[in-house]
Amino acid sequence: MAKIILEPEGKRIPAHRGQTLLQVLRDSGVVLESLCGGFGACGKDKVLIVRGQESLNPLTRSEEKFLTLDEARKGYRLACQARIIEDGDIVVFVPPESRARPTQRKIVSEGYMRNVTLDPFVKKIKVVLRAPSLEDPRSDYERLVDTLRKVLETDDVKASLDVLRDLPDKARNSNWSLSLVLWGNEIVSIEETTSQRPVYGLAVDIGTSKIVVHLVNLENGKIERVAFAENPQLSYGEDIMSRMSYANIGPENLQRLHRLLIDAINSLIEEVVSEAGVSSEDIYEAVIVGNTAMHHFFLGLPTRYLSSSPFTPVVTRSYSLEAREAGLKINRRGKVTVLPVIAGYVGADAVADALAIGLIEKSENILLVDIGTNTEIFAGNAEDYVACSTPSGPALEGGHITFGMKAVEGAIGRVTIDESGDVEYKTINNAPPSGICGSGIIDAVAQLFLRGIIDRRGKFVEGSATERLIRDEKGRGYVIAWSNETSIGKNIVLWEKDISEFLLAKAAIYAGISIALKRRKLDPESLSEVLIAGSFGYHIDPFHAKVVGMIPDVELEKIKFVGNTAIAGADLALLSRKAREEAEIIAKRARYFELSLDPLFNKEFAYALQLPHRELERFPSIAEIVARKDL
Amino acid sequence: MAKIILEPEGKRIPAHRGQTLLQVLRDSGVVLESLCGGFGACGKDKVLIVRGQESLNPLTRSEEKFLTLDEARKGYRLACQARIIEDGDIVVFVPPESRARPTQRKIVSEGYMRNVTLDPFVKKIKVVLRAPSLEDPRSDYERLVDTLRKVLETDDVKASLDVLRDLPDKARNSNWSLSLVLWGNEIVSIEETTSQRPVYGLAVDIGTSKIVVHLVNLENGKIERVAFAENPQLSYGEDIMSRMSYANIGPENLQRLHRLLIDAINSLIEEVVSEAGVSSEDIYEAVIVGNTAMHHFFLGLPTRYLSSSPFTPVVTRSYSLEAREAGLKINRRGKVTVLPVIAGYVGADAVADALAIGLIEKSENILLVDIGTNTEIFAGNAEDYVACSTPSGPALEGGHITFGMKAVEGAIGRVTIDESGDVEYKTINNAPPSGICGSGIIDAVAQLFLRGIIDRRGKFVEGSATERLIRDEKGRGYVIAWSNETSIGKNIVLWEKDISEFLLAKAAIYAGISIALKRRKLDPESLSEVLIAGSFGYHIDPFHAKVVGMIPDVELEKIKFVGNTAIAGADLALLSRKAREEAEIIAKRARYFELSLDPLFNKEFAYALQLPHRELERFPSIAEIVARKDL
Ligand code: FES
Ligand code: FES
Repeated sequence: MAKIILEPEGKRIPAHRGQTLLQVLRDSGVVLESLCGGFGACGKDKVLIVRGQESLNPLTRSEEKFLTLDEARKGYRLACQARIIEDGDIVVFVPPESRARPTQRKIVSEGYMRNVTLDPFVKKIKVVLRAPSLEDPRSDYERLVDTLRKVLETDDVKASLDVLRDLPDKARNSNWSLSLVLWGNEIVSIEETTSQRPVYGLAVDIGTSKIVVHLVNLENGKIERVAFAENPQLSYGEDIMSRMSYANIGPENLQRLHRLLIDAINSLIEEVVSEAGVSSEDIYEAVIVGNTAMHHFFLGLPTRYLSSSPFTPVVTRSYSLEAREAGLKINRRGKVTVLPVIAGYVGADAVADALAIGLIEKSENILLVDIGTNTEIFAGNAEDYVACSTPSGPALEGGHITFGMKAVEGAIGRVTIDESGDVEYKTINNAPPSGICGSGIIDAVAQLFLRGIIDRRGKFVEGSATERLIRDEKGRGYVIAWSNETSIGKNIVLWEKDISEFLLAKAAIYAGISIALKRRKLDPESLSEVLIAGSFGYHIDPFHAKVVGMIPDVELEKIKFVGNTAIAGADLALLSRKAREEAEIIAKRARYFELSLDPLFNKEFAYALQLPHRELERFPSIAEIVARKDL
Repeated sequence: MAKIILEPEGKRIPAHRGQTLLQVLRDSGVVLESLCGGFGACGKDKVLIVRGQESLNPLTRSEEKFLTLDEARKGYRLACQARIIEDGDIVVFVPPESRARPTQRKIVSEGYMRNVTLDPFVKKIKVVLRAPSLEDPRSDYERLVDTLRKVLETDDVKASLDVLRDLPDKARNSNWSLSLVLWGNEIVSIEETTSQRPVYGLAVDIGTSKIVVHLVNLENGKIERVAFAENPQLSYGEDIMSRMSYANIGPENLQRLHRLLIDAINSLIEEVVSEAGVSSEDIYEAVIVGNTAMHHFFLGLPTRYLSSSPFTPVVTRSYSLEAREAGLKINRRGKVTVLPVIAGYVGADAVADALAIGLIEKSENILLVDIGTNTEIFAGNAEDYVACSTPSGPALEGGHITFGMKAVEGAIGRVTIDESGDVEYKTINNAPPSGICGSGIIDAVAQLFLRGIIDRRGKFVEGSATERLIRDEKGRGYVIAWSNETSIGKNIVLWEKDISEFLLAKAAIYAGISIALKRRKLDPESLSEVLIAGSFGYHIDPFHAKVVGMIPDVELEKIKFVGNTAIAGADLALLSRKAREEAEIIAKRARYFELSLDPLFNKEFAYALQLPHRELERFPSIAEIVARKDL
């Protein structure tokens, strides 16, 4: 029996020979930064062996690579590489930088959002005007505009007729001290006295399957309430193509799909305002994002030409209209702004992603990948970037996978397989598993490959000695969770054909990335960041994403999972005038290209169907592990 | 018996000793340029005596002043000064420049309007777009904007949701060849094929008593139809003050007055479109002018603070809104633009006057006077001008004058009194007289004064030997038309108290002008033009206007009557983008001052109550006649 004594806590943990320090520590609840999942490929899980070095195996090749000579002399090891070979007490110090940051691998509900100066497009401001006199005969409105000029730096101020009709009495009743709600340079409301009520905005992400709404306090930038609902159009087809086909039959059908969205958003508005205890009259703007089809349905624009080649949208630039005209139940003088789209398959959601991650401020080259049924890709820097969309299919959202499911409660979102072929998994909300979602599938495929259970073509290797490898009429499969652990009463299995389905998805993504980088004349090494957005249960494990060859082989530190940035982009457009302008620039400046027209696409796609890729040299860090493991 | 033989026609006209050539020629239908009305004060009525000089009186002082030595030697005379003293044949040649131009003194229905380049704010243009392809994936709208960019020199093009919804099908049905109706940079309508139908605009002048509408063809600039109607608000008071009092009682009342205007304009729209055989759908914009009260009633803005000191308008800058919102029955996507106002008593009609006469292009100083119940005055040049309003009252529109009437059929609009005290008059449409309108009153007062029948204070001179001078319980009066000539069966008389009423009006106007010129530091001599606008039956006689002291004593050639320029300004705003911008500048740049606050006003007003003025030296050319006539 060996024992690990953890410093500085003094905690004692029993351990067995054969275990790695990473396993022992993880079992006892000490979570280390192990970006590569324990494959000696990230060098993040450094620990200091204060005493008991003699109970551990000698340094491995990985450790020789990641530890400096000084660290080795002091007694540092990589926890995943240090294996107990003798009983005895081992005193281990875990440096703070090796402990997992709390935000890592948590369940993702919000997207990453860069910091911006709070300068919302909708503002409530207080003005005090000089009363008119024969010597100062300016009209009420000019009086107001003259005061606003200082704030807005323009006298091109607009106001609705309602506002003009209200102005004279309100100004005099309040003794010329007014509260105004401004939407950009337009006065949308006048109140007699400074109301204590803040103004709110609404960020809306219309996803193909889910609508998410944020109630945003525009005075402090806080997201006060979040609500979401299933997209009610689901009954007209899971995918956008079948919904567009339905809409194309006739204007009543289009109108019906349009109405469903509006009604659903209005219900969500009711929900957030009643929960937050505010009035829908206090919401002065809704910013809408969504893919191009949802964008068209929201505005009631025909999808006939969007749904077939050359997939032409009606309008791409951002568009603002009266809330009344849009049908949204916010303040009757409020506005609705739909962020711009880039092309038929690169929508306002993708623009919002790029906005949230600050593409327009990136001087170094980055790669942004928003994974979904269609995966949108941006590659480049603020000055010059390309954008495209790749048809990755539904596998990463659980579609076409036997036990696949969306990232909801009970979905297996994290999978590790140990050397013995045994599985550990985590589910969303720790509920008993009912299926597996995107991040879980990536983990599983990567781990099966790393453990030598599947080969580079995703086929099970004959003679893999694990009871979890099963076979029936569906072919061969690997049991991730036994029936008695699940909520569905049967084994949750990843079948070979599920793996094939996944390979199609990841190959489409990789091919898209590869061609985008080529078009932009970038090597993967020149990227400063690889940002992955999407609605997964957990953050995608960046090492696993590389192992399966879904993203290029860049240093793990460069890979960041940014979550659902679409709604974050909508939040930004509410909170920052500058961000709103940037959204327009992002859409305008993008060099969009039609991926399917690229002569390289078919070859890139076919080569990417292997794990990690037919040209192993494209993935040197994975190639090294493969070579070591002799996979 | 004398005889005038007219060259080159050879026409022979019998004449009597004692007659002037002007009288003889006028009686025989040869109308000379006699700006001063035959008082030797304008020098316009030059004729060449080819033979018979010996039958005429010697040259008068006036002729010595106006004829050059060379002209005198050749035998030129002023027709009004050349009097027959001997029988004989007099051969007279009338040079073309002495003949009255046909536009002189005709009945005024339209205002003067300067020429502008036709560049209407509403345009129908044809565009041909490239069809989309996978290589050219621009949205339908961007495709359109890219094409419009060449025309509009901007890509800040707006479109309503309706237009966006129409665009895809219309573009493809027409094989990408579209007709667009543009309102500025906004696409208001899309048509599949080039429609042959022109686009129309509507110019609307909402007067206190009359609403005038022009249907303007925006493709050739032609005013296709004119229609007018009584302002239906008349039943709520003749003057704007009583209407505002009514409106101030409550919002329903304001709404009622607002509705009356809208309905009246809609009826006029129906009238002009049915007469012109066009559809109201082809009218894409209405430009509205009117005084500030009418402006507020039209927009439904409260008049509570406009109606009492300091007479603050709600809004002064120009304002555009949807036709739908304004309630006008033109194209449902059309627009309504209300031109700017300057102050409570200097409205959009005055701005339109200044626009029509081209104030913003005047490098030399001018005076613009729009005479009505309130008379608006502009003085200065494009760079710097003052504006004010003077309360001239209703006398010049026939109000408070015993037989006063508006300039409608049967109104006496032109009056001359000969040396014997006898009267010649002209009525509108040559109908039997039923009263006297503004231009007739000015003529009558001036002539009575020049003939010595009234004195400088407007009182009848004892012992004036004419049967037309009568007296009854109302005081003394002068019969302009005997009852048997009239349509009303009684004498049309100008009573002494009518003359007093007129003097109040002209004194207010002169005082306003005088102070405006002082504020702008201008002498009357430095004016290059004095432009008089207003709704009179005939052009005001400029000489008479000087005789009564209504306008400063400038050279007669500088005085121009410009008619109802308000509607002309509205026409211009429809026809020229530049003019529309100028309207805004005119209103903004005006140095408005409140006349009643000027410490000089009371004295100026009191002095101006005399004919032509208490300080005769202010009217040197009239003073000269007065001295000559020993009035
Ligand atoms: S976890 Fe040990 S090197 Fe990555
Ligand atoms: S008409 Fe003779 S000088 Fe004027």
